[in-house]
Amino acid sequence: MRLGEWTMQGIFISIEGPEGSGKTTLLNALVPKLQRISDREVLTTREPGGVRIAEEIRKIILDPAHTEMDAKTEALLFAASRRQHLVEKVLPALAAGKLVVADRYVDSSLAYQGNARKLGIDAVAQLNEFATDNLMPDLTLLLDLDVETGIERIMRGRKNEINRIDLESLATHQLVRHGFLKVLEKYPERIVKIDAVKPTEKLVEEALEIITSRLDNL
Amino acid sequence: MRLGEWTMQGIFISIEGPEGSGKTTLLNALVPKLQRISDREVLTTREPGGVRIAEEIRKIILDPAHTEMDAKTEALLFAASRRQHLVEKVLPALAAGKLVVADRYVDSSLAYQGNARKLGIDAVAQLNEFATDNLMPDLTLLLDLDVETGIERIMRGRKNEINRIDLESLATHQLVRHGFLKVLEKYPERIVKIDAVKPTEKLVEEALEIITSRLDNL
Repeated sequence: MRLGEWTMQGIFISIEGPEGSGKTTLLNALVPKLQRISDREVLTTREPGGVRIAEEIRKIILDPAHTEMDAKTEALLFAASRRQHLVEKVLPALAAGKLVVADRYVDSSLAYQGNARKLGIDAVAQLNEFATDNLMPDLTLLLDLDVETGIERIMRGRKNEINRIDLESLATHQLVRHGFLKVLEKYPERIVKIDAVKPTEKLVEEALEIITSRLDNL
Repeated sequence: MRLGEWTMQGIFISIEGPEGSGKTTLLNALVPKLQRISDREVLTTREPGGVRIAEEIRKIILDPAHTEMDAKTEALLFAASRRQHLVEKVLPALAAGKLVVADRYVDSSLAYQGNARKLGIDAVAQLNEFATDNLMPDLTLLLDLDVETGIERIMRGRKNEINRIDLESLATHQLVRHGFLKVLEKYPERIVKIDAVKPTEKLVEEALEIITSRLDNL
């Protein structure tokens, strides 16, 4: 990866997928194993990732009271939060040669704002090229599963923490899933799809296999 | 002007210029006169313009504590605030046939973020095309004056309210002025430059002359 004049020496992996696809579970199981096989320091992060300005932006996006928020405002705010998180957290880690594993990145905006909110995947991709200086992961694992299973998992998983993004219809969740599949078609060299219905152990095994076979200099 | 499938029946004028160029003074003097010669209801507005989400976004941008804010984050946040203000306030007014006079709009981002912050006028223009669906004013009045006079006026004008954007060097203010002049070159049909050193009375007279000669159906 490259950003402006920086020479990046780290490795950047993102994990993507709809709500309930098990990204966080996979990440938690994957990271200690990655740390064992890699000489690099492994950093896991998820936007806004403790970056103050990014946190404040996220608060505006996720406030359930903000029902009047326009879809483009939302896309711009996600891009702004992503930018700040990238500059303060991801870039310094990559410059230091770390292995960065991100729970969600640009592809989530393409699926959610681009496809589900109907702004267009290409328009949102262009916006995010501006926001990220086109810094994309070396590898993206896309966890795919049917929408019903995903929603069931969300409902089981957390009882209190429901935010504005969660309160969407089944149709929207379908559009998100199809959005991710369109994004996979758009970037077939970077993204690898994993069937997320498998038990966690199997998922971790498959993810590790993909990572080690795809990436050099781990 | 046009936005998506909307047919706009109003008229959209923006007033632009660096800090201290007298935009607000001109606006206040201009509006009653415009209201006298126009059958339309005149609406003056300035981003964030009382739009809740836009106000919250502005608070993040202008917080003097946010010294770590990246220039692209700033540009994205301005675009987000602009979008929400446009959708909630400007578009409904234009759809109702009003004459909207805006204190700053896209050109300010081109001059400040594009030129002064060096993100590039074209890149910031593209970002704002996304944010505004390319809805640009029918006419823009650009108040131009030398930087020293502008800064002197700011210092005289307000003693308490200093925000993060004000705390910039003289060199930055020069870049802003030159940014506006580059934007004028880019959009010569839309933008008319006014020498802002003139006394307010003369400014108002000239502005009215430009508006009445340039715009039909006032």
